[in-house]
Amino acid sequence: MIKAGIFGATGYTGFELAQILQRHPQADIVFATSQSNAGQSLAEVYPTAPDVKLVLGENAPLDEVDVVFLCLPHAAAANTAVTALQANGHVIDLSADFRIKDVAVYEKWYGVTHPAPELLETAVYGLTEFARKELPGAKLVANPGCYPTSVLLALQPILAAGLPITGPIIADSKSGVSGAGRAPKQNTHFVEVANNFSPYNIGRKHRHLPEMEQGIASFSQNVGAPPLIFSPHLLPVPRGILSTIYVSLGGQSNEADIRSLYEETYANEPFVHVLPAGQLASLGHVNHTNRCVMALTLADNTLILTSAIDNLIKGAAGQAVQNMNVVFELEETQGLIS
Amino acid sequence: MIKAGIFGATGYTGFELAQILQRHPQADIVFATSQSNAGQSLAEVYPTAPDVKLVLGENAPLDEVDVVFLCLPHAAAANTAVTALQANGHVIDLSADFRIKDVAVYEKWYGVTHPAPELLETAVYGLTEFARKELPGAKLVANPGCYPTSVLLALQPILAAGLPITGPIIADSKSGVSGAGRAPKQNTHFVEVANNFSPYNIGRKHRHLPEMEQGIASFSQNVGAPPLIFSPHLLPVPRGILSTIYVSLGGQSNEADIRSLYEETYANEPFVHVLPAGQLASLGHVNHTNRCVMALTLADNTLILTSAIDNLIKGAAGQAVQNMNVVFELEETQGLIS
Amino acid sequence: MIKAGIFGATGYTGFELAQILQRHPQADIVFATSQSNAGQSLAEVYPTAPDVKLVLGENAPLDEVDVVFLCLPHAAAANTAVTALQANGHVIDLSADFRIKDVAVYEKWYGVTHPAPELLETAVYGLTEFARKELPGAKLVANPGCYPTSVLLALQPILAAGLPITGPIIADSKSGVSGAGRAPKQNTHFVEVANNFSPYNIGRKHRHLPEMEQGIASFSQNVGAPPLIFSPHLLPVPRGILSTIYVSLGGQSNEADIRSLYEETYANEPFVHVLPAGQLASLGHVNHTNRCVMALTLADNTLILTSAIDNLIKGAAGQAVQNMNVVFELEETQGLIS
Amino acid sequence: MIKAGIFGATGYTGFELAQILQRHPQADIVFATSQSNAGQSLAEVYPTAPDVKLVLGENAPLDEVDVVFLCLPHAAAANTAVTALQANGHVIDLSADFRIKDVAVYEKWYGVTHPAPELLETAVYGLTEFARKELPGAKLVANPGCYPTSVLLALQPILAAGLPITGPIIADSKSGVSGAGRAPKQNTHFVEVANNFSPYNIGRKHRHLPEMEQGIASFSQNVGAPPLIFSPHLLPVPRGILSTIYVSLGGQSNEADIRSLYEETYANEPFVHVLPAGQLASLGHVNHTNRCVMALTLADNTLILTSAIDNLIKGAAGQAVQNMNVVFELEETQGLIS
Repeated sequence: MIKAGIFGATGYTGFELAQILQRHPQADIVFATSQSNAGQSLAEVYPTAPDVKLVLGENAPLDEVDVVFLCLPHAAAANTAVTALQANGHVIDLSADFRIKDVAVYEKWYGVTHPAPELLETAVYGLTEFARKELPGAKLVANPGCYPTSVLLALQPILAAGLPITGPIIADSKSGVSGAGRAPKQNTHFVEVANNFSPYNIGRKHRHLPEMEQGIASFSQNVGAPPLIFSPHLLPVPRGILSTIYVSLGGQSNEADIRSLYEETYANEPFVHVLPAGQLASLGHVNHTNRCVMALTLADNTLILTSAIDNLIKGAAGQAVQNMNVVFELEETQGLIS
Repeated sequence: MIKAGIFGATGYTGFELAQILQRHPQADIVFATSQSNAGQSLAEVYPTAPDVKLVLGENAPLDEVDVVFLCLPHAAAANTAVTALQANGHVIDLSADFRIKDVAVYEKWYGVTHPAPELLETAVYGLTEFARKELPGAKLVANPGCYPTSVLLALQPILAAGLPITGPIIADSKSGVSGAGRAPKQNTHFVEVANNFSPYNIGRKHRHLPEMEQGIASFSQNVGAPPLIFSPHLLPVPRGILSTIYVSLGGQSNEADIRSLYEETYANEPFVHVLPAGQLASLGHVNHTNRCVMALTLADNTLILTSAIDNLIKGAAGQAVQNMNVVFELEETQGLIS
Repeated sequence: MIKAGIFGATGYTGFELAQILQRHPQADIVFATSQSNAGQSLAEVYPTAPDVKLVLGENAPLDEVDVVFLCLPHAAAANTAVTALQANGHVIDLSADFRIKDVAVYEKWYGVTHPAPELLETAVYGLTEFARKELPGAKLVANPGCYPTSVLLALQPILAAGLPITGPIIADSKSGVSGAGRAPKQNTHFVEVANNFSPYNIGRKHRHLPEMEQGIASFSQNVGAPPLIFSPHLLPVPRGILSTIYVSLGGQSNEADIRSLYEETYANEPFVHVLPAGQLASLGHVNHTNRCVMALTLADNTLILTSAIDNLIKGAAGQAVQNMNVVFELEETQGLIS
Repeated sequence: MIKAGIFGATGYTGFELAQILQRHPQADIVFATSQSNAGQSLAEVYPTAPDVKLVLGENAPLDEVDVVFLCLPHAAAANTAVTALQANGHVIDLSADFRIKDVAVYEKWYGVTHPAPELLETAVYGLTEFARKELPGAKLVANPGCYPTSVLLALQPILAAGLPITGPIIADSKSGVSGAGRAPKQNTHFVEVANNFSPYNIGRKHRHLPEMEQGIASFSQNVGAPPLIFSPHLLPVPRGILSTIYVSLGGQSNEADIRSLYEETYANEPFVHVLPAGQLASLGHVNHTNRCVMALTLADNTLILTSAIDNLIKGAAGQAVQNMNVVFELEETQGLIS
């Protein structure tokens, strides 16, 4: 059994992670931390959560676990990672701290001095499907952001194929409210969200932009990486992300050929589903699962990708457990719904 | 034109009131106050609100208005009422401060010393349909609570008829989230409310209980007033209250006779609608209107009343304007949807 | 491995059942039927469903299964039960056909001639917690209705204790829309349901009333069974039932004593949770689990019970699997979330 | 007073129109038709509707009205228009029948032979803000589609300015469920829509595409009209459309200059609001009003427009009344919320 600790268990991601680990046949939760609810059980915070005692982060018994999951704000996560690595555990960090390789880019977008830049080089960017070589045995995994997971999985095949792309890629993404976190704010008040739908930070303003552009560049090694326009929107649903992505293809294209490309790329992937012609991805395909479901359609020379994930699962806690499975060389689907 | 001021314009009730007054053909908004948004326009807080400059409460020009509406927390409202009455205006108070005639009961339930008990005697309890004699010219109107409006309008005919009632009256009420106010809290977070439904303060614990029991007693003068069991629940909708009320009738009863009683009581009321046999009240009958829609059905000897209002309109801002219309002897339906 | 067949797999209950059985470690789905989607896979109807080929009911290979689940309309279910029993399988019927022991009562409320009244005597009413003696090896299980499950589990301890009850029991119940079935109707249209809340069939009109009164009578053997007033309401949520139940106790009562009664009754039950003093049940406690979560509070002499279940799980498919586990003497919690 | 008739009053658009006309100070509803509810009152279908008797379309007293509104399916609308024009009334058609000037394009997209192609030439395309010259006195107005209203109002200033545009314009639109009509279908069932979000007919497949391309061409007279990629999505809300529109500008651009262009175009428009820099349009800006609220932001050379309307009001019934006001030379804002 893998012995796991969760830092930051009372946020939505931490709670989801606790639920997944509780049902995982080869993992046990050894500790869970909370700064505001220490002393209580996680089940007192979320009625359907496992009955795990919450401790302060500083009291977490790091030497009793094989792996820790960090569901902490950025900077706090990196500091905790340092301590946990010293205690010889594996670290799966769900914050942004180790996702961006260029420390200057990180510091510009996140507005803090990176607490542990020396760890960036060894951190594995855990978009699991494209990190299978680096993950087994990895000490530090940077779990991807929710929006980047939905966008990068959809873009990888077309980028890797090296087809000419003209102009920027446009990702018009829509996310459920759990993506905004559990702390009550005016813009997550039920009365403000219900019956509403709102864009925010559109264009080139959202912190997930540099993470996505880094991924786009890594998939486009032999051609110039196109820039990204990214427009997130807040959906009046608790969970789920749907990204509608527009890629202008330079030359003559054929939908069937592109579909083959996608089907081949993901043929053996348990969690990535490419829909047949005529179907489109929706939140109903993915919520409460670790799936990414995608569809493609060609309109003139514009490739339109629709890509759906559950932001709390494949976009956070589920992919973190998928990464744990690969790090520890368990069966990749253990504990997850595919 | 009636010149009106609004204290506390940035809460949900204040915003609703501003919208109603803006469309009222015989009223003008002269000022609106906000402690947190003073200096801004109300339209900066609510995009569809009128463009009214917000001022601090202490800077409100009380001598420029005929009437002020108090959308303030209890105790703060009573203090403002004193000042406004000294400036010679009429006051319509949407807080609980002047609803309960017995100062000891008020102080027990609201946990504060009443700031102006000397005003209680002259305050008119503004359940408009049953306050038509006292309202014209009244200086101080205590606007009823939202739950009490839905419950008392439904109970008045059966109580006034003096039929024997056995055991407690049970009011099982369900309210939209705007009733919990605009300040963000954990229990109004979209993710907590969506897909959920929760009772709270059930039995004899909610502050609206003594207000309702006072109303029940006033309608039951010749018979002993039955006690009330009141169970509020939080609905995953922005607005609306539906109360399902159970009254055990002591003797032999007949649904048609009781229906006649209700139809007669409300025959000339523009805002109270008694549904025909076989229909039941729902939020869809009332939201965005100043209506109270009610229905009755008899099951053995239990009279079941369903009573629906929009909590922000007939349950607050709309009834306040209805009261203003009667105080100033305007046509009662002016500015309101019936 | 238990080999299972599902009749009527494309309704909401059938789909939920397919999901539960797919994850059940000791059960396999051998067939699933659909009259309208035969030839397709269940996954074509519900993207997250298992990939089970749908066949016409008349083509179901009854001799290949140990148990069939009937998610069929009443009367159709009884006819299928007869055939399945002849093929020597066990039958768990989720329709109303075998719930009511008195055939005249059934025929009055359901408006049909009972297709197989001779089976009523042997059918076990599968409110699992109170059917443990009869269930093991049972050939025919009548799975309880959703509302009755939420109401009867909450009432059993107080009824079995024989405390005097005055007047009718009142159950004010609220259900999510999946309870109305998957066939599109005007009253399940998103625009009609969203932002709305509606009572229906209140008083003594809903078909679940006789089922609940039968259960109340069975739990109250030594005292006269009180009549029931039952008021269902439609909640704007996909799933979940919360029943708020009012019981007028004749004598002097004490909340702590009643709580002890409940805690003792359910002390060893994996799926029934009695909340501690001060807490109330909500849909958030139960959705996506097989739980019934209940709370009690005493207001004067009125006992108020709040009882929550997921209508599709403990109120239908989950309890059906719980019953299967007991019939086949598996561990009762297998495949279910407790 | 303008005497008005409504054909097809029981759909969502017809109901909204009846509500607006009822509150319009210079209009009266003389008749309303329904094929399925003839003989009833509109208030029996929608509790908050005016109490208007519903008649069969063939019994509508055309000679008693000044104007008829057609809330009918395509083809049926054109046939009714012919009859109404013969009776000498004005016609405001909310169907697609007279929107597209090229009859071959209409017949290809709508799959029917046009019933009255001879009327196409005189029909005025009633995107009110850009039809002020043709509307006064017009006998036949083709009221724009909901998506085209949100997209064309947002595009007009940039197109009319003649700036070079490279590649296709992309409109990623999201609509509430009332846009799918009132007839119950599987994809409008509450359980299917709640918690979900779905694209449909994306690319170049939706019937509103040719209408929008016609409008784009008309605004771009001196430059080649760019093609359109249009991706509609179904939002889990009853009403409202938000379009996020991407325009690749060929040359060097400046957000402040473009904003000036928009502010000048709409400076005197009561219903079109251009938000200041840093703000984005949302459904909360427009629902229950006749507004179109838009915002613009520049990311590199991509202009991103966000444009919001209430699909039932500015996208249908409200714009129809706005058109009526201009046709009859009333004040344009009469009866409408700006």
